Amino acid sequence: MGQVVRFSVSLESDLLSAFDRLIVARGYANRSEAIRDGIRRQLISREWEEGDEVAGVITLLYDHHRPGLAEEITEIQHQAIPQVISTTHIHLDGSNCLEFIAVKGEGRAIQSLADKLQSLKGVKHEEIAATSTGKKIV
Amino acid sequence: MGQVVRFSVSLESDLLSAFDRLIVARGYANRSEAIRDGIRRQLISREWEEGDEVAGVITLLYDHHRPGLAEEITEIQHQAIPQVISTTHIHLDGSNCLEFIAVKGEGRAIQSLADKLQSLKGVKHEEIAATSTGKKIV
Amino acid sequence: MGQVVRFSVSLESDLLSAFDRLIVARGYANRSEAIRDGIRRQLISREWEEGDEVAGVITLLYDHHRPGLAEEITEIQHQAIPQVISTTHIHLDGSNCLEFIAVKGEGRAIQSLADKLQSLKGVKHEEIAATSTGKKIV
Amino acid sequence: MGQVVRFSVSLESDLLSAFDRLIVARGYANRSEAIRDGIRRQLISREWEEGDEVAGVITLLYDHHRPGLAEEITEIQHQAIPQVISTTHIHLDGSNCLEFIAVKGEGRAIQSLADKLQSLKGVKHEEIAATSTGKKIV
Repeated sequence: MGQVVRFSVSLESDLLSAFDRLIVARGYANRSEAIRDGIRRQLISREWEEGDEVAGVITLLYDHHRPGLAEEITEIQHQAIPQVISTTHIHLDGSNCLEFIAVKGEGRAIQSLADKLQSLKGVKHEEIAATSTGKKIV
Repeated sequence: MGQVVRFSVSLESDLLSAFDRLIVARGYANRSEAIRDGIRRQLISREWEEGDEVAGVITLLYDHHRPGLAEEITEIQHQAIPQVISTTHIHLDGSNCLEFIAVKGEGRAIQSLADKLQSLKGVKHEEIAATSTGKKIV
Repeated sequence: MGQVVRFSVSLESDLLSAFDRLIVARGYANRSEAIRDGIRRQLISREWEEGDEVAGVITLLYDHHRPGLAEEITEIQHQAIPQVISTTHIHLDGSNCLEFIAVKGEGRAIQSLADKLQSLKGVKHEEIAATSTGKKIV
Repeated sequence: MGQVVRFSVSLESDLLSAFDRLIVARGYANRSEAIRDGIRRQLISREWEEGDEVAGVITLLYDHHRPGLAEEITEIQHQAIPQVISTTHIHLDGSNCLEFIAVKGEGRAIQSLADKLQSLKGVKHEEIAATSTGKKIV
């Protein structure tokens, strides 16, 4: 993680008071931690903008009663092995499944994999949570 | 704006280097300014979550050849006068108009006004830019 | 606008009932209008993804008491004339201004202009409403 | 799933052509499937707006070398058992972990759990993928 350095920030006192109230509301231990989180969030947006290697989770909601669907979802993931890391499956009720696919790779490849899954008949919803490999985000 | 205060932040040196590169890429004068922007962005998200008075712009893309549409858009805005501040109209080409409606009020009322406009036949697209009245955001 | 064509859609009856309730809640006149809006929204997302010419509004919240800020905001817009179409200014209260800049051009150029404005000292918030020139969106 | 019904949609022919090109680009089998997906996406947004029971995934990126952090993340999840369904853990590299927490419950409770996790020292990033329990989304 490297050494910790300190630097000082200047801020209008009213803005600092509003920030301190937000820190309490969100549950942060101190200002540094809240600021670190804000910085990391900006860096991660930039990784996705710039086409860097990123990580994320593709979330699928689907109906496992649809014949052949589960097999097709599995097959597509196998074809995308450089990006797909692992899959978790939750049985929501008698017919609805939630499946999370952990992925790593270029943002465009992840988006294209998500498109392929979303377009399958029986997949009700697909959503990507965009995060980072953490390599450049201390 | 009140007086300016200083406080110190501790950060891993690698994270600080990455942040410094981002500051250059985004064009900030210094770290304090970039941190202030991040703090304000979080405060404004919170204003919308909490149902505070907020400000924003509703952007409409529509076809002015649709009979009666421009009148209807105007009429709806007049009925929403506590929220609607002003309107700007851009002639994009022979048929496409861009209209920006500056609004102020509760997030829910703004969303409901935007829904009403979006659902009109001939309105091709509607988008809200969510910002703040700035009262609590120094 | 070209001629209107009809095609038929098949849908589970429960999904159609839920959609019909949504149509009422959002205020649409009929299913076709609601479906047209959904299609246009997807096409516009794609225009931004693909780097096509797009349109939008950059919304700035700033404090006009900051010396030289209004001039700098104007200057930056003049330098970006191929993208900048017009500007509207709202006086929110004694110090807060809301400024909307109508823009047209490549998504990347618009983002870069927005970054430049956001990074100015005294600009409290910046937000882009992403829409379309409407040329390909009937 | 109930029976399948058919209804017809009227659309400008140019808009239909643009939609057909989008369907090919996204990989949909036919128009009905693309329209069903658009409808479901709107219904799920509405479930989150209205405070219905929803489902989702909280994604955490964190550094497992931080003493006590993994235990604290586990402890918080145990305290949130009505919402937390299961957790998957990916070892990204020597220090970075990706953890996905499958959740079900009110949107507000999920947001508050995510805030609590995000604010922990050592959690680098947190993101929610918002989806549905699928109960009302056929």
